[in-house]
Amino acid sequence: MKLTKNTAGRRVPDIVNGVAQTPYKGAGKFAPTGTKAAPPIRAAQDYPADGDKRVPSIKEALERAGLADGMTISSHHHFRNGDLLMVPVFDAAAQLGLKNLRWFPSAAFPCHEPIIKHMESGVISHIEGSLNGPLGRFASEGRMNGTAVLRSHGGRWQAVQDGEVHIDLALLAAPTADPFGNATGDRGPSACGLLGFGLVDSLYADRSIVVTDDLVPFPCVPWQIMGQNIDYVVEVDQVGDPSKIVSGSTRLTRSPDRLYIAELTAKFVRAAGIMRDGFSFQAGAGGTALAFAIYLREMMQEAGVKARFIRGGSTKYLVEMLEEGLTDFILDGQTFDLEGVRSMRENPGHIDTSPFTSYNWHGKGNFASMVDVVVLGATEVDLNFNANVVTHSDGVMLHGIGGWQNCLASACTILPIPSFRDRIPIIVDEVTTLCGPGELIDVVVTERGIAINPLREDLIQATRRSGLPIKPLAQIKAEVEALVGGPPQKPALADEVIGIVKWVDGTVLDSVFKIEAN
Amino acid sequence: MKLTKNTAGRRVPDIVNGVAQTPYKGAGKFAPTGTKAAPPIRAAQDYPADGDKRVPSIKEALERAGLADGMTISSHHHFRNGDLLMVPVFDAAAQLGLKNLRWFPSAAFPCHEPIIKHMESGVISHIEGSLNGPLGRFASEGRMNGTAVLRSHGGRWQAVQDGEVHIDLALLAAPTADPFGNATGDRGPSACGLLGFGLVDSLYADRSIVVTDDLVPFPCVPWQIMGQNIDYVVEVDQVGDPSKIVSGSTRLTRSPDRLYIAELTAKFVRAAGIMRDGFSFQAGAGGTALAFAIYLREMMQEAGVKARFIRGGSTKYLVEMLEEGLTDFILDGQTFDLEGVRSMRENPGHIDTSPFTSYNWHGKGNFASMVDVVVLGATEVDLNFNANVVTHSDGVMLHGIGGWQNCLASACTILPIPSFRDRIPIIVDEVTTLCGPGELIDVVVTERGIAINPLREDLIQATRRSGLPIKPLAQIKAEVEALVGGPPQKPALADEVIGIVKWVDGTVLDSVFKIEAN
Repeated sequence: MKLTKNTAGRRVPDIVNGVAQTPYKGAGKFAPTGTKAAPPIRAAQDYPADGDKRVPSIKEALERAGLADGMTISSHHHFRNGDLLMVPVFDAAAQLGLKNLRWFPSAAFPCHEPIIKHMESGVISHIEGSLNGPLGRFASEGRMNGTAVLRSHGGRWQAVQDGEVHIDLALLAAPTADPFGNATGDRGPSACGLLGFGLVDSLYADRSIVVTDDLVPFPCVPWQIMGQNIDYVVEVDQVGDPSKIVSGSTRLTRSPDRLYIAELTAKFVRAAGIMRDGFSFQAGAGGTALAFAIYLREMMQEAGVKARFIRGGSTKYLVEMLEEGLTDFILDGQTFDLEGVRSMRENPGHIDTSPFTSYNWHGKGNFASMVDVVVLGATEVDLNFNANVVTHSDGVMLHGIGGWQNCLASACTILPIPSFRDRIPIIVDEVTTLCGPGELIDVVVTERGIAINPLREDLIQATRRSGLPIKPLAQIKAEVEALVGGPPQKPALADEVIGIVKWVDGTVLDSVFKIEAN
Repeated sequence: MKLTKNTAGRRVPDIVNGVAQTPYKGAGKFAPTGTKAAPPIRAAQDYPADGDKRVPSIKEALERAGLADGMTISSHHHFRNGDLLMVPVFDAAAQLGLKNLRWFPSAAFPCHEPIIKHMESGVISHIEGSLNGPLGRFASEGRMNGTAVLRSHGGRWQAVQDGEVHIDLALLAAPTADPFGNATGDRGPSACGLLGFGLVDSLYADRSIVVTDDLVPFPCVPWQIMGQNIDYVVEVDQVGDPSKIVSGSTRLTRSPDRLYIAELTAKFVRAAGIMRDGFSFQAGAGGTALAFAIYLREMMQEAGVKARFIRGGSTKYLVEMLEEGLTDFILDGQTFDLEGVRSMRENPGHIDTSPFTSYNWHGKGNFASMVDVVVLGATEVDLNFNANVVTHSDGVMLHGIGGWQNCLASACTILPIPSFRDRIPIIVDEVTTLCGPGELIDVVVTERGIAINPLREDLIQATRRSGLPIKPLAQIKAEVEALVGGPPQKPALADEVIGIVKWVDGTVLDSVFKIEAN
């Protein structure tokens, strides 16, 4: 694995898991060529005329789908930490004696820790997908056989669509489905809202299996996943635990500092003239972003301003705004709580989207760039506004990218972050891992003040007389370092690449390095 | 052009419009290989970040899309005889000096007669698509440069999906759209219901233009057509005249004979045990099929039977059944009247479908085969239950195939037809043009009696004691011939192929021959 410096000045490998890579060229600079991936042509005569594609068990479905050594299995993460499907799937694969599988989830969570044993035994070669928690640590310690490949939600669609990742078999957990394979996430005892993260899998995989705990007579309406793309349907007792969709990162913050940051962010949006009739915003699921939405809602009510659309992940706070008439639409990519699920089922203005509609950079545009302002988190930011979301200051890879990179296409990207966490400054000389180029990040809001990217002369002008505590990022950095006694320690990293961070166009933005053994 | 006999015994050409053809192999016998068509990869940086893809005129959109000599332009026919888009499009192409274009509509109607001049001048080389009325006659007379290629709705999807027809530029008439290109047919002053016939075009064409007379702010919801597949948006004064969606063939019959046939058909469905709780049916838009639905509704009410779904084309009669609770769903492919349009917009149980969901034979199944009984028209039937829908007894090609071939996948296919029209018998020794193989056609209902295909021993058994006038097809044929003075004259046809009839799998089922000059 040879490392070369890309346009962002980061060292990235030329070959990853046997596949040649293109180094990052700059935002919007890589011009793709060629054609999209082309799935095999199927014929209706090879499927049951009565539409009944049920098979008795996951194990039998894996066998009938022709699962073989070295193949790629994909799955979606709409249940987040409540997924109950993929551990049994890989247990069944192990029983079948399979080896060297690649798992291509849209994200893995702490609930997937039991899968580590299948990596250790060789059933799974490696995982390509967001690795949250224990699986991320496993990779960071250099214990995974292959290299982790971190992609944004849009980047995952792009990779499949462009043929960079070929899915042999998609496993699609479905809260409700019919025997033909039509499936939806918005109803049933395990309702998780929508299934957009599994849509590209259903479209491009050679074979697809829908697994459900709520089988209804044909037709299952809505059909977020279409039976015409499905080979087999399996019934199980429980496909997912929606109560575990809400995780620590999707709860409203109670920290006074973070509430202050959230309020400051909302005030900035108002002062910059972004909060006007017909505007749009997206706020991530982090606690501070949720609080931002609540402050913004109050300001919108006061000013009598109505949004045209809000981009989800949805929460009860966004649902309340929709139901109060503060927005015409929620365009939702994932529901973060059960109120989001209910609203998606009940409100005609609560629209389900997919990474194709929202984020895919290799389409004829997408929704992300039409959002007036997006509010996101970060683990680190540097003085050039470059930001990190996947590694912590100790270098351990603990988070996926989610839609974060895709959202940077917004007209205004704001990162409301505390200036330090556990006495470790967040504003650094150079981010441990580059996930978002500074040219796309417009504002950093901390409890010590607001820093505007010098590239955004328009925002600087618009907020000049706002009375908000606007100051250079370097000044905030200096203040924090004075307070905590200097810049943070660099993480102890080996010169061994254990993962890469893809940019939204499939090029390699940065490498993630192995952490040194303690 | 060499003609060889296919499995059905029909003479078909080996090459059509320069493309090698596969002769029909039998229903469900052709096994496709290879992969689906792969559209070019696009990049969001080449589209406006604010999502505004508007250009001032159709002509400018054609130029910006790079329309060039020899290219293929596609369009949908949801406005049927009320389309106002394609005549101006080809007028603009003529103004641009373009030559040798191929038009690939989902269907052409009498309103497109002005396009004949562009075929005569060489702007258009030929049309591939259903040719209703004057354009069909133009082709039948041998006056079109290329060969007509008639496909079913599902066959059109299959042809594009499988790469048999490459669309350079799709023109999509849209009753409502936003500047990003999201579009819907269910609302706006020109609402036509849905846009499913243009969906495959938007997915696979190199370039796509949405043309609308009702531009709304982003997002246009629902997005039956997704802006992520659209290059340009053009506003015009009027995109279509929905009052002309209803044509002669979609009005309820008043003929006592045909009403009797319709009633007999409904009685047969009841007697055969098909009309039971949770069943499904599809009735075409012909006057007799509409009357059948009305008789069936009465029988369902009497018996207290509720359908699970009815397949549209929708009409006010089906909408009434949905709103009366006689069915859970209408799964609709095209709205045949304005009540259908309203219902699609208002009723959660009125679901829009596309040829992919309903008909495409080269998917992992489709809806058509799950329909318990389908009631269709025909221009001719022979003693082997083979049927014709595209040519009349004089050999003139006047109709498209529509979804007719696709519907033959139903568990029970019934053709209610008069035994003669204008003193010309409909039951013949050999159909002029073979559109549907007899093995897939189960019952022929005429005013002289009901003939059941001998292959359907189950239906024969089920209706043995029904008291219905069941008799052999040959007997009905003999009765009619005795009445009108013998079998009909064979049409006067030259040995020159002016069109082909594709089967649902892309193979060539039959040829359409030039009519002899009078």
